Amino acid sequence: MSQSTIIKLHNGSDVTQLLAYIPYARYVEFAGSRWIVSERFLPKEEIEQRSDSVEVVYSSTPYPLASKALGAQRTIVQVGAVSIGAGHPVMIAGPCSVESRDQLLSTATHLAQNGCHILRGGAYKPRTSPYSFQGLQHDGLKLLAEARALTGLPIVTEVMSPQDVELVATYADMLQIGARNMQNFPLLAEAGRSGKPILLKRSPWATLTIWLQAAEYILSEGNFQVVLCERGICTSEASAGRHLDLTAIQLIPELSHLPIIADPSHGTGQRSLVTPMAIASLITGADGIMVEVHPEPDKALSDGKQTLSFQEYDALIEKAQKVADTSFSTCVSFAV
Amino acid sequence: MSQSTIIKLHNGSDVTQLLAYIPYARYVEFAGSRWIVSERFLPKEEIEQRSDSVEVVYSSTPYPLASKALGAQRTIVQVGAVSIGAGHPVMIAGPCSVESRDQLLSTATHLAQNGCHILRGGAYKPRTSPYSFQGLQHDGLKLLAEARALTGLPIVTEVMSPQDVELVATYADMLQIGARNMQNFPLLAEAGRSGKPILLKRSPWATLTIWLQAAEYILSEGNFQVVLCERGICTSEASAGRHLDLTAIQLIPELSHLPIIADPSHGTGQRSLVTPMAIASLITGADGIMVEVHPEPDKALSDGKQTLSFQEYDALIEKAQKVADTSFSTCVSFAV
Amino acid sequence: MSQSTIIKLHNGSDVTQLLAYIPYARYVEFAGSRWIVSERFLPKEEIEQRSDSVEVVYSSTPYPLASKALGAQRTIVQVGAVSIGAGHPVMIAGPCSVESRDQLLSTATHLAQNGCHILRGGAYKPRTSPYSFQGLQHDGLKLLAEARALTGLPIVTEVMSPQDVELVATYADMLQIGARNMQNFPLLAEAGRSGKPILLKRSPWATLTIWLQAAEYILSEGNFQVVLCERGICTSEASAGRHLDLTAIQLIPELSHLPIIADPSHGTGQRSLVTPMAIASLITGADGIMVEVHPEPDKALSDGKQTLSFQEYDALIEKAQKVADTSFSTCVSFAV
Amino acid sequence: MSQSTIIKLHNGSDVTQLLAYIPYARYVEFAGSRWIVSERFLPKEEIEQRSDSVEVVYSSTPYPLASKALGAQRTIVQVGAVSIGAGHPVMIAGPCSVESRDQLLSTATHLAQNGCHILRGGAYKPRTSPYSFQGLQHDGLKLLAEARALTGLPIVTEVMSPQDVELVATYADMLQIGARNMQNFPLLAEAGRSGKPILLKRSPWATLTIWLQAAEYILSEGNFQVVLCERGICTSEASAGRHLDLTAIQLIPELSHLPIIADPSHGTGQRSLVTPMAIASLITGADGIMVEVHPEPDKALSDGKQTLSFQEYDALIEKAQKVADTSFSTCVSFAV
Repeated sequence: MSQSTIIKLHNGSDVTQLLAYIPYARYVEFAGSRWIVSERFLPKEEIEQRSDSVEVVYSSTPYPLASKALGAQRTIVQVGAVSIGAGHPVMIAGPCSVESRDQLLSTATHLAQNGCHILRGGAYKPRTSPYSFQGLQHDGLKLLAEARALTGLPIVTEVMSPQDVELVATYADMLQIGARNMQNFPLLAEAGRSGKPILLKRSPWATLTIWLQAAEYILSEGNFQVVLCERGICTSEASAGRHLDLTAIQLIPELSHLPIIADPSHGTGQRSLVTPMAIASLITGADGIMVEVHPEPDKALSDGKQTLSFQEYDALIEKAQKVADTSFSTCVSFAV
Repeated sequence: MSQSTIIKLHNGSDVTQLLAYIPYARYVEFAGSRWIVSERFLPKEEIEQRSDSVEVVYSSTPYPLASKALGAQRTIVQVGAVSIGAGHPVMIAGPCSVESRDQLLSTATHLAQNGCHILRGGAYKPRTSPYSFQGLQHDGLKLLAEARALTGLPIVTEVMSPQDVELVATYADMLQIGARNMQNFPLLAEAGRSGKPILLKRSPWATLTIWLQAAEYILSEGNFQVVLCERGICTSEASAGRHLDLTAIQLIPELSHLPIIADPSHGTGQRSLVTPMAIASLITGADGIMVEVHPEPDKALSDGKQTLSFQEYDALIEKAQKVADTSFSTCVSFAV
Repeated sequence: MSQSTIIKLHNGSDVTQLLAYIPYARYVEFAGSRWIVSERFLPKEEIEQRSDSVEVVYSSTPYPLASKALGAQRTIVQVGAVSIGAGHPVMIAGPCSVESRDQLLSTATHLAQNGCHILRGGAYKPRTSPYSFQGLQHDGLKLLAEARALTGLPIVTEVMSPQDVELVATYADMLQIGARNMQNFPLLAEAGRSGKPILLKRSPWATLTIWLQAAEYILSEGNFQVVLCERGICTSEASAGRHLDLTAIQLIPELSHLPIIADPSHGTGQRSLVTPMAIASLITGADGIMVEVHPEPDKALSDGKQTLSFQEYDALIEKAQKVADTSFSTCVSFAV
Repeated sequence: MSQSTIIKLHNGSDVTQLLAYIPYARYVEFAGSRWIVSERFLPKEEIEQRSDSVEVVYSSTPYPLASKALGAQRTIVQVGAVSIGAGHPVMIAGPCSVESRDQLLSTATHLAQNGCHILRGGAYKPRTSPYSFQGLQHDGLKLLAEARALTGLPIVTEVMSPQDVELVATYADMLQIGARNMQNFPLLAEAGRSGKPILLKRSPWATLTIWLQAAEYILSEGNFQVVLCERGICTSEASAGRHLDLTAIQLIPELSHLPIIADPSHGTGQRSLVTPMAIASLITGADGIMVEVHPEPDKALSDGKQTLSFQEYDALIEKAQKVADTSFSTCVSFAV
C-alpha cells in the first residue's frame, strides 16, 4: 500500500532544506499557499524537526493532490463563464477538426443556439497515419478565436507538444491533452504551468490509478483546474479503445475531487451509439459530455463515422434535457 | 466472409437425401415447418436439383437462424405470462442463491409487490471454488416452485449439466445457461430440446459472433425462445468480466432478432454501481434487466457484494419507472 | 488475503462431526489418507477440540490442494508408461479430430516412430458452430483404442459432458477438459472421480488463480493426477485466445505442484508460429507440449490452419532435441 | 482494404504540382531519391499525366514505407559499428536510469567485457509518478558519453520531448522513443529528422498495424533507420503491459522490412522471468534483446524488480550463446 505525504508550509519556512531532506519531493504553490509533496510516508515528527510546517496530511494513494486527502469538496473547473463540476452537466461539442471558416462558424453558431456550453475543435490533430489530414494548426486556432468572438462560447482545443503550449494557450480557454499523450509528461508539465484549465483524456489502456497519476503531473505544477475525460478502453471485443467505461465515471468521484466527463464519440466510434452512450454517461453521473458535430459528417476530414449531424445533435440535447427534468439522478440537471 | 444457407422444405420432400448431400448440415423443425441449415453457401440451383424445397435464404453470418435472415421481426420470448422483447422492459430479480424457505419467500413476496416480473434464484450454483456453498439443488427447485405458487411470478434458474435439464425443466419456467457454460455445447443442445425458454449469458471473453453462435446451438434444436444476457466482459481495467458491455445491448438488435437483457449485478460486482448501470442499460435499449436482491445482502451465501437490499431494489424500480415515463427512448416504457 | 485449511485425519476419527462444524468443507481421500479441506481459516485449537486430527496445514491460496501447502515436491502424472512432470518434456501429438481409420492410424504410426509420447485425437469435438463437424464420437474412441494397440502410445482425448465420462474413460488413458469447459464444474467433478489422469486446459480469460481453483475441483475428488495445459489468452491484439502465455508456464511451478504443458497449436492458431512457440515453451520450462498433426493439414475437418504436416512435425522434434542436447535449461532434456 | 501509393520521382520532375494534386501526400527523400507517398490509391495513368515519375508502387497496408512494398530485403540498422537486423542478434543492456558516474561506468565496463553490443541508460525518464526520480537529464547524457569513450559501446537513450531531440542526438548513437510516446507524433517526426537510428517501443495497447503506422511517421521523414522493440501488451491476466508478445516478433518480419528486438525486462516486470523470455525471444527470431542491468538491482532508483545483476546478466549471455551455437534457428547466431 502506497502512502504519500502532503506538507503545508508556514509562510516564512525554508523550502530548500526540507526538499534536500526528502528525495524527489515536489514543491507546489496553490490555493495561495506553499506545499511539499512526496510519494513517501514521512513521519510528522521528522518533518517538524526540520520545518515549522502548518499541516501534514497523508494519502493512501500515489496521487495525493488528485485524491481527497486535502478535503472531500469536489473541484469546480472554470472555463470562461462555464463551470464544470458544479452539479449541472456541461455540453462540449464541435467538429473533430477545424477544417474551414465556413465549417467552423456554421457549426459554432448552431451549437451556441442549441444548448452547447463549450466549443471543441482540433487545430493540431494527432492522426494515426502521417498521410492523413494533420489539422490547420495556427490558422485553426485563429478560426477558433473567431468562432468564440461570434458566439461567446469558450474554446477547448488539443495541444500536442510542449513548445506549442504557449501559442495554443493564447487562443484557447481550455487545453486538451489527448489520449495518446496522457503520459507525455513534459507536455503535462508545460500545460500545467500555463495556468489554463486542462482536459485530460484517458489512454485506452490506463487504469484509474495511472490516469490519476498523470493528472498529478498537472496538479503538482500548482494547477488544479483539471477535468478528466473518459473516452474508451480496450476490451476483448472492441479494438482501438472503443469501449466507453461508464464504471470509471462512477468510480472517479470516489477516488478524486476532479470532475469527470465522457466522450462517447471516441468511446464508441460509431454514430448510432453516440447518443445512447451520452445519455447513459449522464445517468451514471458524468459532469458533462463531449461530442463531435459537423455540418456534413460524411464529408468530415477526420472521425466522420462517429460524428453527429446538427439534427442528431439537437435530438441528443432534447434527450439530455428530458433526463435532466426527470432528475432521477442527483447529478443530472442538464442546463440548456 | 462466411455465408450460410437456410432451406425451407416442402412437406413431402425427402430430408435424408439432402442431408447426405450437405456435410454437417442440421435438420431443424420450427414454426411448424421443416428446415435444413448449413454454414456453407449452397447455390439455389444445386439444392433444387435434389429437393423441391420451398425457399432458400442466405445469411452473411455464421449464425443464420439467430441472424435476421428469416425476417427483421424481433422474437418475443414468453415466460409464463411475461413477454420479453415486446417493447416493455422486463425486471428479473431475486437472490443469487436460494438459501432457505424464509429467505426466498420473503424476497419473492417483496419483489412481486414491487414491479418484478420474473423471479430468479440459483438452486445449482457454479462456484469458482469447490469449498463454497454449492446450492440447495433439488430442494432449491422445490422452494422456487413454492415461491411461484405464492406470488405468481414465473421462475428462471440455472442448469449446469445436461442430465439435470429434465429435472430443472419440470420446475422452472425459463432455464438459465451461465456465462461459464456459454460454450457447453451438450448443455445448450439439451436445454434447447427441453422446449423451455432459455436465458443465455455471455462469456466474459466472447465476441458477439461467438455468443450468437452459441445461441445457434439452441435455435438449431428448433427452440427459438432464447433471451441473450450481457453480464460483463474483460477489459484492461476490470478483472473477472466486471465490465458491463452496453455497446452489446445496442449492437445485438442490429445483428439478431433475439431479445437482450443486462445483468448489472455480475457486470459490475459492486453494489453501488448496480442501479446506475441498470438504468443505463434501459437507456441503451435493453429488453430487461436482471438484478440480485436479498433481505440481508451482507449475509448472503454468494455474491453479497453485488446484491441489492429491498430498499435499494425499490429505489431502482422507482428510477426505472421515471425513465419509462420520460420515454425519451422508444424502447423504454417500463411496466411496473 | 484468503487462507484455507487442510486437515489430515487420524484413521479412526469421526469425519461427520467435523464436517458438520465446518460449512462447505470437503472430505477428500488421497495418498491413502483421509482429509478435510476448507477455504476458511480454522484455528488449530478449535479443530483439535473436535477431532484427533493428525496434521493441520494452512495455505494462503484459495486452492490449498493444488498449492504447495502439502509439500514442495512436484507431482508426476502417469499416463500409461509415460511420466509427465518428471524432468523430461513430453510430446503429445495427433490430429485435432479423429476423422477416419486411415487418417488416425497413419498419423499414429508416424508419430510413434518419431518421438511422440502420447497420442491426442478428438472424438467428441466442441465446435463454435453447430454446423461444423462434431466428431466421430464413440466410433472415434474405438479408432483411438486401435491406434494405441497398433503403436503402444497412450491416448488422451476430450470429454465434453459428465454422462460421457464413463464411456470415454474406458477407452482413454487420459481425459482432456477443454478450455470452454474449464469451469464446467459437474464435468470436472465427474472426471475427477473417474480416477483417470486429467489434462485441464485454461480458459482464455482465466487468471492463474481461477485456473488453479478449477483444478482444485478435480483434486478435491481425491484425484491428484492433473496436468495443466496453457493454450492462449485474450489480449488487445489477439482474438479468440490466440496468445500463448509463456509467463504462465514459468509462474505455475511457483504456485502449484502440478505439471504444466503448452499447446502452441491453439495458442497461436497459425501453422508458421507453432514450432517457434513450442520451442519457446520448452525453453521457459514446460513439462511438455501438445501439437496438432495431420497427414494433409489443409484437408483437416477442424483446425487445419494450425495443424502441422508430418514433415513439419519431424522438424519440430529435431529442434526440440537440439534444445534438449544444449541443456541450457535444467528442465529441458527432451527424450525422443 | 486500404491501398496506399508510393511514387518515385525523376530527378527533374516537379514535386509541387503533384503534391497539390494529392491531398495529404508526403514528400520524402531517401536512398538518394525523391518520393511522394499517399495513403490513397492513385491510378498510375493519372499520376503519369501529371508527372514523369520513375516508378509507382502500391501497398495493401496503411504503412507503405514500413511495408515490403519497396522490396523484400530487410533493413539493417547501423548503430556505431553495430548492425541490427544483419542476422546476428544484438545485445543491448544497461541500467534503467543513469544514476551516478560509478554506477554507469562499472556497469558499462562489465557489459563491454561480457557480450554486450550497445549500452542503454535513461537520462530523461518517463515516470508514472511526478514524485519519482526523473533522471539526471543533461548530466546523464554526459555520463553516457563518458561510458562510450571508456568502453567503445555505442549508446541508446530515451528522448521524451521534441525540443530535447537536438541535445540528446549530440550525445546518443541511437534515440529511443518509449512506449508511452509511441504516438507522440511531433516527437516521432523530430526524431526522424535528426537522422539518428531510432528504437521505437510498442505501446501496450497498440496493434501491429498502429505500431507500424507510428514507425511510418519516422520513415516518412526520410529516416529508415528504425528498430521496433516489443515490450509487453495488455492481457486479461497481466496489468501494465507486462506480457511480452512473442507472436509480434514472428509476425513483424512478415509485414515489414524493419528489424525487431524484444525487451523482456519491461515485458515481464519480474527478474526471474527476464532470462527465459529473453532466450524465448531469440528462439522466435528477435534481432536482438534489450535488458536492464545494475550493479545492485535492489537499490536501483527505477525498475529494480525487473533488473538483472551482473551475475544474472552473465548467465543470460551464456545461455544465449548456447542457443546461438545450437543454431536451430537460422536467425540465431549470437555473436558475443
